[in-house]
Amino acid sequence: MSPRQIEVSEPRQVGITELVLRDAHQSLMATRMAMEDMIDACADIDAAGYWSVECWGGATYDACIRFLNEDPWQRLRTFRELLPNSRLQMLLRGQNLLGYRHYNDEVVDRFVDKSAENGMDVFRVFDAMNDPRNLEHAMAAVKKAGKHAQGTICYTISPVHTTEGYVKLAGQLLDMGADSIAFKDMAALLKPQPAYDIVKGIKDTYGSDVQINVHCHSTTGVTQVSLMKAIEAGADVVDTAVSSMSLGPGHNPTESVVEMLEGTGYTTGLDLDRVLKIRDHFKKIRPKYADFESKTLVDTNIFKSQIPGGMLSNMESQLRAQGAEARIDEVMNMVPVCRKDAGYPPLVTPSSQIVGTQAVFNVLMGPYKVMTGEFADMMLGYYGASPAERNPEIIKQAAAQAKKDPIDVRPADLLEPEWDKLVSEASALQGFDGTEEDVLTYALFPGVASTFFENRSKGPKSVAKSEAQLKAEAEGKASTALN
Amino acid sequence: MSPRQIEVSEPRQVGITELVLRDAHQSLMATRMAMEDMIDACADIDAAGYWSVECWGGATYDACIRFLNEDPWQRLRTFRELLPNSRLQMLLRGQNLLGYRHYNDEVVDRFVDKSAENGMDVFRVFDAMNDPRNLEHAMAAVKKAGKHAQGTICYTISPVHTTEGYVKLAGQLLDMGADSIAFKDMAALLKPQPAYDIVKGIKDTYGSDVQINVHCHSTTGVTQVSLMKAIEAGADVVDTAVSSMSLGPGHNPTESVVEMLEGTGYTTGLDLDRVLKIRDHFKKIRPKYADFESKTLVDTNIFKSQIPGGMLSNMESQLRAQGAEARIDEVMNMVPVCRKDAGYPPLVTPSSQIVGTQAVFNVLMGPYKVMTGEFADMMLGYYGASPAERNPEIIKQAAAQAKKDPIDVRPADLLEPEWDKLVSEASALQGFDGTEEDVLTYALFPGVASTFFENRSKGPKSVAKSEAQLKAEAEGKASTALN
Ligand SMILES: [Co+2]
Ligand SMILES: [Co+2]
Repeated sequence: MSPRQIEVSEPRQVGITELVLRDAHQSLMATRMAMEDMIDACADIDAAGYWSVECWGGATYDACIRFLNEDPWQRLRTFRELLPNSRLQMLLRGQNLLGYRHYNDEVVDRFVDKSAENGMDVFRVFDAMNDPRNLEHAMAAVKKAGKHAQGTICYTISPVHTTEGYVKLAGQLLDMGADSIAFKDMAALLKPQPAYDIVKGIKDTYGSDVQINVHCHSTTGVTQVSLMKAIEAGADVVDTAVSSMSLGPGHNPTESVVEMLEGTGYTTGLDLDRVLKIRDHFKKIRPKYADFESKTLVDTNIFKSQIPGGMLSNMESQLRAQGAEARIDEVMNMVPVCRKDAGYPPLVTPSSQIVGTQAVFNVLMGPYKVMTGEFADMMLGYYGASPAERNPEIIKQAAAQAKKDPIDVRPADLLEPEWDKLVSEASALQGFDGTEEDVLTYALFPGVASTFFENRSKGPKSVAKSEAQLKAEAEGKASTALN
Repeated sequence: MSPRQIEVSEPRQVGITELVLRDAHQSLMATRMAMEDMIDACADIDAAGYWSVECWGGATYDACIRFLNEDPWQRLRTFRELLPNSRLQMLLRGQNLLGYRHYNDEVVDRFVDKSAENGMDVFRVFDAMNDPRNLEHAMAAVKKAGKHAQGTICYTISPVHTTEGYVKLAGQLLDMGADSIAFKDMAALLKPQPAYDIVKGIKDTYGSDVQINVHCHSTTGVTQVSLMKAIEAGADVVDTAVSSMSLGPGHNPTESVVEMLEGTGYTTGLDLDRVLKIRDHFKKIRPKYADFESKTLVDTNIFKSQIPGGMLSNMESQLRAQGAEARIDEVMNMVPVCRKDAGYPPLVTPSSQIVGTQAVFNVLMGPYKVMTGEFADMMLGYYGASPAERNPEIIKQAAAQAKKDPIDVRPADLLEPEWDKLVSEASALQGFDGTEEDVLTYALFPGVASTFFENRSKGPKSVAKSEAQLKAEAEGKASTALN
């Protein structure tokens, strides 16, 4: 079907998920944006006509209690109040919830219930291993709460990842009751042709009424074209961030996606005047967080190295700590080896750190001479099934070192009930407010929760620069420039 | 034709014109890049496999003699020497050459001959009014010199501009012997659908062997998708800039365009390792020119206002000079009126300044109470034919004020021979070196040439920051941040 033929018929509506309140500032400024810098944009966001507004997730929760002295549940309730007409959306790490370990099913139920109760509408549920069993319980909990359960596929590239494989995975998520499928390209790896092929494959296989949401970052500079091809293939919703909070490690600009569709037979139906007001708001805010921003706008290295930027800098700092920064090339060559041994997991939190650290260990101490506990767990199935077979030799070593047997059940099946223990531990903390929400905060971030509870009453603090600081800096720079 | 069908056949080669040596630094850093900052990238540029390397034009010529004390002809010869295997490409303003007025045909001939002799291969010839008669002589001169004459269409949007109109214009350029057609989108206005329609229209009408080059800026954030659609419609060559010198008011990133085509049935054939070396080179250079950069990355305002960013800031500073900055909205509403009266010229140098200044005058002093000499000339046909009829009432006023009759001949037909006069005037200048190249420098920039000739022997100077300055600034900023 050529675009010319499309043009004559009624334009098809493509939904937009606005990322500015969560992933945009997570990706651009280490999730540091204070609630006070978002509030004034909410009326326009609520009226712009987005399919959904992403505003919550693991990193926002973590940053709230770790850096901003802000209760993440209060943030959610504030968004609910300020965005009464919007679908609020969050990113949920399946059985990991917003934390870094698997939780017992009861904790998952309680977390999902409380999130729904506090105002969440759309739960984008993913798992770093793409193991559907790690999504299953959370998805069921979302459905039981009467909310939108979005089954998510993490996109990666490897010798075992194929269009057919992704289509099959989508089917497994639909079988478990997914209300929609999210295709999540956290590393900006998704090129236009696979974007087209995979979306089309899912639509052709499971029907055109299967809702597909496409999430791409813009790091490599190719993914706006991928969004276009995904839309041509039938994608229903695409994720963007308002232009003043876009590009680089962030996302494609909302206004540009609106404009690019003009005349194509697709339309977002967004109120562009509203979007431009949102843009103007964040244009003033962004410079206040400049110290948290990376300077790289476009980087296609990942297509060659297969190593996401954040993972690379982690490995570099690990090497530097050992005075071995010169060995980065060896480590980069080791990453594909470790990833293959581990059965080609997608490289996303936490698998990227687990694989990267093991690659550093392998280079510094010899291949698998020392295995990290996490890598051993991954080899033994404690993070879930991997996309391909894992290396049996390394599994044996992992079992010997960790003194554990490999498993092939769903990891959470092995977990004991833990809610009562979490309640009693949380209750012992100074400043604990007696709510289930606080127990969940403790469950997710036990190390940070106690400090946060203690200090909560002091109220939110901002790590942004003030207007005065920005002005002083500009003057300091000008005077240096005169030298 | 769906991408899936394309995939099975041999990929079609799409050429790339690399813009880093001309338009990229013109758009990002006011054309200030010193030759010394480009030299080390040339070996990789020459070997990367570009269709052409754009490296010369009006603004580079101007900046060389005005700011860098560098002979633009020497720059051209250096590029010729450093890029022996590349097609060197320049942007030529038709009968205006690299200046701001129409030149007598003999001057055009001599300029083109000297450019060819000094190493130029591809002449991208355009006219701000899109009047083919203003291209005709320059195109013929290029062909006589045995070089590649690229007939250029400036893209704009107006009630009178249609796909059919652009296709017809392409035909006129082909009739005058164009070796290829360039579609030039200087304001990042070209959306995917018109990109597809116009390229397809030209190919369908004049044959698939007509070479089409597409030039887009990235200001609005939509044009990488437009390049994709242009390629799908048959575009042969697209213009990009290496990623470390891309985006914002510049262009789409070379590596991203290479990568986006993977698996689509199109390929650039570029040597990506070379391109990455070019990127690394300019990644180090760009910060040295940070003071010349604008901070805006994406701006879709032009779709609504129809006013390019540069034109807007011109008008704002004109208003400010009159203490009337508050009247910018009135001026913005006046621009479409003046543009309509002038017959909807594309808004590009110099028409954007001419229309913008008249709009300011109209607001400050009443509609056409005072007409600038340039606007009167435009109304009277002295810049060439306009895309649509001009307002007869305003033509009458212009004639009365300028005491000139309207013309409908090619403006340069009215010009007297001027070469001998230029030679004698140039010869009188201190530091004139007796060459025809120096006469041309004087002809193009009479106001700057004399100072340049006088100072030329002192050699090129850089306006870039030194490493030491960059370091001092970074430290200054850090200490301010500690306040
Ligand atoms: Co993301
Ligand atoms: Co340009």
